[in-house]
Amino acid sequence: MTSFKDFIQTYKPQVEETLVAESKQHGPEVSDSYEQALQYALLTKGKRLRPLLVLAVIDSFGQAIDGEAVKAASAIEWVHAYSLVHDDLPEMDNDAYRRGQLSVHALYGPSLAVLVGDALQAQAYQILSAVKSISAEQKMRMVATLSARSGAFGMVYGQVLDMGNHNVNHDAVAQEAVLNQVYQKKTADLLTAAALIGGHYLDLDEAAMALMGKYGQKLGLLFQIQDDFDDYEQDAEEGVVSLVHLYGLEKSKQMIADLRSEAKQALQDLEKLEPAFDAGLLTNLIDLIGA
Amino acid sequence: MTSFKDFIQTYKPQVEETLVAESKQHGPEVSDSYEQALQYALLTKGKRLRPLLVLAVIDSFGQAIDGEAVKAASAIEWVHAYSLVHDDLPEMDNDAYRRGQLSVHALYGPSLAVLVGDALQAQAYQILSAVKSISAEQKMRMVATLSARSGAFGMVYGQVLDMGNHNVNHDAVAQEAVLNQVYQKKTADLLTAAALIGGHYLDLDEAAMALMGKYGQKLGLLFQIQDDFDDYEQDAEEGVVSLVHLYGLEKSKQMIADLRSEAKQALQDLEKLEPAFDAGLLTNLIDLIGA
Repeated sequence: MTSFKDFIQTYKPQVEETLVAESKQHGPEVSDSYEQALQYALLTKGKRLRPLLVLAVIDSFGQAIDGEAVKAASAIEWVHAYSLVHDDLPEMDNDAYRRGQLSVHALYGPSLAVLVGDALQAQAYQILSAVKSISAEQKMRMVATLSARSGAFGMVYGQVLDMGNHNVNHDAVAQEAVLNQVYQKKTADLLTAAALIGGHYLDLDEAAMALMGKYGQKLGLLFQIQDDFDDYEQDAEEGVVSLVHLYGLEKSKQMIADLRSEAKQALQDLEKLEPAFDAGLLTNLIDLIGA
Repeated sequence: MTSFKDFIQTYKPQVEETLVAESKQHGPEVSDSYEQALQYALLTKGKRLRPLLVLAVIDSFGQAIDGEAVKAASAIEWVHAYSLVHDDLPEMDNDAYRRGQLSVHALYGPSLAVLVGDALQAQAYQILSAVKSISAEQKMRMVATLSARSGAFGMVYGQVLDMGNHNVNHDAVAQEAVLNQVYQKKTADLLTAAALIGGHYLDLDEAAMALMGKYGQKLGLLFQIQDDFDDYEQDAEEGVVSLVHLYGLEKSKQMIADLRSEAKQALQDLEKLEPAFDAGLLTNLIDLIGA
């Protein structure tokens, strides 16, 4: 399969079913509103881009995607969901809506939202630890990748920088450096983790993992800058400063084009290295962003 | 060694050193106040009971405690620290002080406190994944135990129940059931995890793990009920309802005595099962609680 849209159509329903099943595994005693809040946080409509990227990596090596692969891929969505719940909290971005629906804290209150986020994060590791079709070494590498990329010096640090960025006036050079780091940590690190988790599932060697990581990173930065490009006018009205505002539309277009070609280059290098790898599907994902 | 006080004196400094070293592993770019907040959250004075329990289990089987064992043991303290930071948040228990010092949110603000808690949780798994002296299977079992006991249907669920318990008036029977669950989930589950992580480090078999888990659970309940017993008068003044209030002092004394003997029985059964196991040190820990 080389169309990412077709890939989504085939595999997104399996990701959704797996998330539903995982969110209902519990003892009989769990209080209703807590379980509802957990499921609401996890199951509210989303693109499921991160687990689909894990699966697309597996598919690109000609490997069949079975139920265990979907479980391994789903773990990262639990981390993504926890980050959204905590990002929306009153003391953070204070968003009452997420994807057009009430945010978890708006619907269930901030204390339950803190706890639901904490629970979602822990469950990601619970889910990884229970995957059956791969070795303990592979699962351990997934745990290492996910905790590093989402944790204290990955995604969480991106959020720390982003919060600081809302509150402080930097000069342009300092702001550029901060925004670059925010993009890298807050968005690109978790997409990189998705690409790498796919690689761990396949037990790729170090050289292939490096290229897979590079693809994930370029894709993540592209994803964020394209998003800012699309939101340019709205951000300007709301006073949000993005890299696109710092650079201007022309230079931003060039950055986007550069990231696209760097991401594609990583895939082409991977094709040379790994005869089983077909770059078609992951290349198509690059082209879908901003199309 | 059979005196837990001596054991603390020998090994607590190593635990502290390891926590300090772990809290300083980062890229050069981390913003000062964030790093300070992470270290403050982790390094503020504490008993370090959970990592010391992991190490005491290892010592009780005659195994040497090396640096890798201390690292494996330290992971659970990161989870404990995250739970304290989030428990103190304004929307949770709203505590400005913890162990006589300003809580993380009081010192660094609630948004950084949310993020520091999130970061501490992720680092626990990062630390487990990096332990060198044990197999990937053993590390994976530690990840499974820690995420299950601390997560959605473990410690976090205990906190959910505890929050509900503050706000709702139950009848005595319902309240007893809730409090039992709060004690089990909020306190006993993480102490059980500590005992089990020690067991995973030793690669114990299922029968031995069951007894180790039973010891951890009884010890955790004992720890919490003794604490409530000691706080009986203060709680009464502040309107906090504990199991000790529900049962009265006489019945509570009996419960404490029962838990002590059940915990000791688990250790005696383990001695029969495992010739290498010496129950002295872990029995002494039981006797220290409330002494």
